[in-house]
Amino acid sequence: MALRGRALYNFQSENKEEISIQENEELVVFSERSLDGWLQGRNSRGETGLFPASYVEIVRPRAGSGHAEGSGSPAGSPGHPHGFCAAPAGLSYQGSFEDDDDDDWDDWDDSCTVVEEPRGAAGANGHPAAGAEPYGAPRAKPALERQDSVGSSKRGSVVGRNLNRFSCFVRSGVEAYGIEMGSKGPQWRANPHPFICSVEDPTKQTKFKGIKSYISYKLTPSNFNSPVYRRYKHFDWLYNRLLHKFTVISVPHLPEKQATGRFEEDFIEKRKRRLILWMEHMTSHPVLSQYEGFQHFLRCRDEKQWKLGKRRAEKDEMVGASFLLTIQIPTEHQDLQDVEDRVDAFKAFSKKMDDSVLQLTNVASELVRKHVGGFRKEFQKLGNAFQAISYSFQMDPPYSLDALNNAISHTGKTYEAVGEMFAEQPKNDLFLMLDTLSLYQGLLSNFPDIIHLQKGAFAKVKESQRMSDEGRMDQEEADGIRKRCRVVGFALQAEMNHFHERRVADFKRMMQSYLKQQIIFYQRVSQQLEKTLRMYDNL
Amino acid sequence: MALRGRALYNFQSENKEEISIQENEELVVFSERSLDGWLQGRNSRGETGLFPASYVEIVRPRAGSGHAEGSGSPAGSPGHPHGFCAAPAGLSYQGSFEDDDDDDWDDWDDSCTVVEEPRGAAGANGHPAAGAEPYGAPRAKPALERQDSVGSSKRGSVVGRNLNRFSCFVRSGVEAYGIEMGSKGPQWRANPHPFICSVEDPTKQTKFKGIKSYISYKLTPSNFNSPVYRRYKHFDWLYNRLLHKFTVISVPHLPEKQATGRFEEDFIEKRKRRLILWMEHMTSHPVLSQYEGFQHFLRCRDEKQWKLGKRRAEKDEMVGASFLLTIQIPTEHQDLQDVEDRVDAFKAFSKKMDDSVLQLTNVASELVRKHVGGFRKEFQKLGNAFQAISYSFQMDPPYSLDALNNAISHTGKTYEAVGEMFAEQPKNDLFLMLDTLSLYQGLLSNFPDIIHLQKGAFAKVKESQRMSDEGRMDQEEADGIRKRCRVVGFALQAEMNHFHERRVADFKRMMQSYLKQQIIFYQRVSQQLEKTLRMYDNL
Repeated sequence: MALRGRALYNFQSENKEEISIQENEELVVFSERSLDGWLQGRNSRGETGLFPASYVEIVRPRAGSGHAEGSGSPAGSPGHPHGFCAAPAGLSYQGSFEDDDDDDWDDWDDSCTVVEEPRGAAGANGHPAAGAEPYGAPRAKPALERQDSVGSSKRGSVVGRNLNRFSCFVRSGVEAYGIEMGSKGPQWRANPHPFICSVEDPTKQTKFKGIKSYISYKLTPSNFNSPVYRRYKHFDWLYNRLLHKFTVISVPHLPEKQATGRFEEDFIEKRKRRLILWMEHMTSHPVLSQYEGFQHFLRCRDEKQWKLGKRRAEKDEMVGASFLLTIQIPTEHQDLQDVEDRVDAFKAFSKKMDDSVLQLTNVASELVRKHVGGFRKEFQKLGNAFQAISYSFQMDPPYSLDALNNAISHTGKTYEAVGEMFAEQPKNDLFLMLDTLSLYQGLLSNFPDIIHLQKGAFAKVKESQRMSDEGRMDQEEADGIRKRCRVVGFALQAEMNHFHERRVADFKRMMQSYLKQQIIFYQRVSQQLEKTLRMYDNL
Repeated sequence: MALRGRALYNFQSENKEEISIQENEELVVFSERSLDGWLQGRNSRGETGLFPASYVEIVRPRAGSGHAEGSGSPAGSPGHPHGFCAAPAGLSYQGSFEDDDDDDWDDWDDSCTVVEEPRGAAGANGHPAAGAEPYGAPRAKPALERQDSVGSSKRGSVVGRNLNRFSCFVRSGVEAYGIEMGSKGPQWRANPHPFICSVEDPTKQTKFKGIKSYISYKLTPSNFNSPVYRRYKHFDWLYNRLLHKFTVISVPHLPEKQATGRFEEDFIEKRKRRLILWMEHMTSHPVLSQYEGFQHFLRCRDEKQWKLGKRRAEKDEMVGASFLLTIQIPTEHQDLQDVEDRVDAFKAFSKKMDDSVLQLTNVASELVRKHVGGFRKEFQKLGNAFQAISYSFQMDPPYSLDALNNAISHTGKTYEAVGEMFAEQPKNDLFLMLDTLSLYQGLLSNFPDIIHLQKGAFAKVKESQRMSDEGRMDQEEADGIRKRCRVVGFALQAEMNHFHERRVADFKRMMQSYLKQQIIFYQRVSQQLEKTLRMYDNL
């Protein structure tokens, strides 16, 4: 049933399914049930199509018309009654489903709508429910509590505590990250609750009756057995939070966006593999792995809580320079010159490593191309040529020796198979190498900015000390600057240390895996050929 | 001491060492000792360089001057007193040492100049010397007999007999080649004295103080232990004799000539490999292996005898159609239509085989190119990139893990080595394949002419029969034609049969050898990688 609507903002159509609308334009809305945050309707120029639900307000008729809110939405469907509201200020539509940062919740798992359970039940299970809704949401979706209860009843108390601490932003932004002295200088204090997280089952989802589609990934943290489903844009939201907050940490880049063909199987596989590596790096990082926004991302299964958690993370004031204040640092003396020297050495190293990673990336990419193209083609051609020989040998029957012809023909097929093995091989070896290299390209590219920040901080210390000596700055202010600079120095060293630790582990694994797969490959090729050779034995 | 000379013919310089001379031009000849048939001197335009000795006559001063012929020639040098004479009529200079067919004997083995031994000694050893010089050479180089004696004293009597029969054209040209009926129709009667012959040690020889050079090959027939040394031009001489005489036999082509770079190592190796295959095919052919010209080529070690044997072979009248008269054929009935059908089937087969051999040749050649070029380069680049990674890892010493860096660096070296293995591999596998294919390309290319000859003969039979029926040809003549045609039919069938027999053996061997070498190769690669992988074990 069509309704009247009014555009709250300008919206520029960017796809042929969409129509443009102007602020205050009168619209016809075909149904007030939004599809993933989009409404279908007609604008004043008579164009019909999609526009963002949040850009439009429905003009309600004075008299009740029987189209009560949500009346058409069957229970248990992934419909989105909340999507139907005016857009919050500052939320801009970006025109791309890959990139947009709106509150779409379209990959919401069906299981979140099952049986309601009274809140008291969760509390009675020993999990204080008070902390679960710090933002005064009077009726959070009961499903969340149920999930938590079911989940936590299977786990021990440590995980339970951890869960309560992070699941829905129990505490304010002041996390207690720490640095301690290790054998190779300052290092991040380990996450007391280490975990890993699988990234699996990229699944294509569609909306708007198949017009728009996206991929959801199933994430299962090891300390929280229930999976969540996330889209790339959710990763992207988290990534931007990380960048914003952890200016002194090398945040792993997300796998690159791809404008076209993003649902091709190979692309999906590649993104999954790289999200796995990204996740490994996130969970292995003592600071990043503990970030509340990350925990929220890994665990939140309720749409309303999701939004609240996002808002909270976005309002976190302990970001950038302020984040530094939340780090507990050692009391050891810090020699600025010593730190500068270590940073300079790291800078030179990281430049060189960046070059060599790029070089290996180029070589490996070219090798992939050769495997799939040239190498396969050569072996196929060889296989075809053997088959042609065999075929010609059958042309003069009285002199034809079937056993030889068969053996040669089989040799041809073997080489065609070897060609396919070559084409498939990058999936077993070069891809993991390229994934690892890509992760490191991202990590390395962060360091110039981090080092720049440290250089600036150290310069400011010297400057402030001079000003203090000259009486142009009181000592208290200079001491404050020096203190923040100490944190930067410790944090950067801890980050460098962490980078090296991961680098050794990751490259060892990368090289071992590559060699192992190569060995298996060449052995398989020679086994294939051995089987074929045996056909010639009894001629 | 310079002499006066006069050009007998025009000679056009084709190399920078040579000078052009005009008929009747007056020349200065620096020494009358020719070097491999060339003289050094100056023409009337003042140019100095080489020209063919045979194109020039020395103008002798009336009074004796003490420069007696050969006076400056030390005994035992490979000088050529006979080269110094006017050119025999009909011997044209072809401007290329590769192609010329003159009597140069410059690759004459040094051992032929050792201790003289009276002729009687050889005869007393039980080897009738009479047959050895059938052309009335009164004093053949004694070295020949000595070599024969030493050689044959080590061998049994069969080989000795065989030696006497063939060593220097014991008999006149009427060889007794035969065809008998086998399971697959007519086949050549086997050589009663089968043998093989090795082709080894291509050795670069120089003349004109290094200005001109050539390669000699050491040939050792299995039934004649003493080697002979032959140049490509000697093979070429033999090949042309074979073509001339055995019109109904598919004579294996010689490896191709190469105008430039013919002393490059790879070319020499390639020619050697192909001469080996050529020789294998020659010795395995029941008719070709018994040809007296071939036996002469394989055994004659005396320069004078060599020339005489060549002349004799060139004067052989039992060539072409006449050769057919020397073949003993079965008495079995021959159905012309049946022969035609078999020939047509073979024709279709050989066309198809020719195509497939060409296809495989192209593929294999391209693979060689890829192995030496692209494949090697890819692996080298991969190796270099690993080394660059290892190098960059050494840049931040406190965090550097030597064992990992070494392992990665070693992996780099391993892949460089694998690249070299790829580049070297064609020598182990593809080359033999290409050699075999090249031999077969040659053999197959002969058949159209042979089949054309058979078609012509058969057509003539039908024609003569009709003419005889019409009384325009007497029956005796028609019977003669029919008889020769019978020989052609039997011979072509025997040759087809022989071809198929060899084809099966050669292609079986080719495929087996290729597969074996490929298996070894891939195993070696994986072994190299396994060794390298172990370096990562205890990190």
